[in-house]
Amino acid sequence: MSLATLRVSEFIDELSSSSPAPGGGSVAALSACLGTALTAMVCRLTIGKKKYTDVEQEMKDTEGKAIDLQKKQLELMDRDTDAFNAVMGAFGMPKETEDQKKLRHEAIQNATRQATLVPLEVIERWRAAISLADTVARKGNANARSDAGVSALLISAAAEAAFYNILINLGSLTDAPFVSSTRTDAERLMADVKKQASSIREHVLESIQG
Amino acid sequence: MSLATLRVSEFIDELSSSSPAPGGGSVAALSACLGTALTAMVCRLTIGKKKYTDVEQEMKDTEGKAIDLQKKQLELMDRDTDAFNAVMGAFGMPKETEDQKKLRHEAIQNATRQATLVPLEVIERWRAAISLADTVARKGNANARSDAGVSALLISAAAEAAFYNILINLGSLTDAPFVSSTRTDAERLMADVKKQASSIREHVLESIQG
Repeated sequence: MSLATLRVSEFIDELSSSSPAPGGGSVAALSACLGTALTAMVCRLTIGKKKYTDVEQEMKDTEGKAIDLQKKQLELMDRDTDAFNAVMGAFGMPKETEDQKKLRHEAIQNATRQATLVPLEVIERWRAAISLADTVARKGNANARSDAGVSALLISAAAEAAFYNILINLGSLTDAPFVSSTRTDAERLMADVKKQASSIREHVLESIQG
Repeated sequence: MSLATLRVSEFIDELSSSSPAPGGGSVAALSACLGTALTAMVCRLTIGKKKYTDVEQEMKDTEGKAIDLQKKQLELMDRDTDAFNAVMGAFGMPKETEDQKKLRHEAIQNATRQATLVPLEVIERWRAAISLADTVARKGNANARSDAGVSALLISAAAEAAFYNILINLGSLTDAPFVSSTRTDAERLMADVKKQASSIREHVLESIQG
């Protein structure tokens, strides 16, 4: 079952249930999908407007990229849930004999590594998405400036949520070189996203306060 | 039609359409509803656990309050869309004669005032919601700490989105005392939310990095 086929109200009920999935990672991804859809909306509110003919082609390109990213992220939302469930499944493996313990440990390590790589891919895509939000915040229809700002806020929050998941998962991995390189990658991506988000936020606040 | 009855994928399509509503305000509200549902989830992951009997009652209370706030905010999401549509409707009124112009001006002012008060109510509720996220981030099941963090991120983003909408609407209102007092209220609430969100974020980051 894809989470995207649930009704909004059902999704919320499913979420607040005592089952740990879907959890923070999926919710943040959904929020940023909504944020990216807002970027696409701002493009559509700009395309065809006389005042914005100069940026018409850029808005069309941005719209296409936003829709594409949003679709890919919806898939990642399900993959994040699957990866989390796989970790839970590995923890549930039998641990009576030494062999079982070894198999279980390996299964947990593999599933956790996967559950780390999915949110890393998520941040990377959100970095691309926030660049699109930046484009519409600066060049899109000025009447929709705050929508561009909200888009950036949600994408940045989602990237940070993915960052939390990476940190947590790294904490239970024993492969030191993997931990170190993944951490460096995640911190670099996160810093990029935050920098862009705060620049968009300043621009939007200045702009809507005239 | 309530936005909450749409499927997640339909909501996203509706959003990215060239119609300006639903827009940033509604999306941010939905995201924070999801965030508040996460707070409720952390409560449910804490209640009944031996390690957390000390906070059992507090978690039950927090869960009830979170579910309540989340439901109220879903309603506000629709009210925000309605308020925005009312402003658009007022702008569409005839403006041929002096009488029509006067009526139209008054209708725009009234609708915009309403479209300012809805997001102010939204921030106030999100301030309450972020206090609940704070409770679960500090006292809830430690395995769900990052979920509490994501909850706070989304709620804070939603409050900021409502803040943008307030600023924009205040820009087109002529009633100076209303503008001034609403702005002061909004800034105070927003500062509260940001302070709490950054304290939760620090706590969560410290906590998940061991």
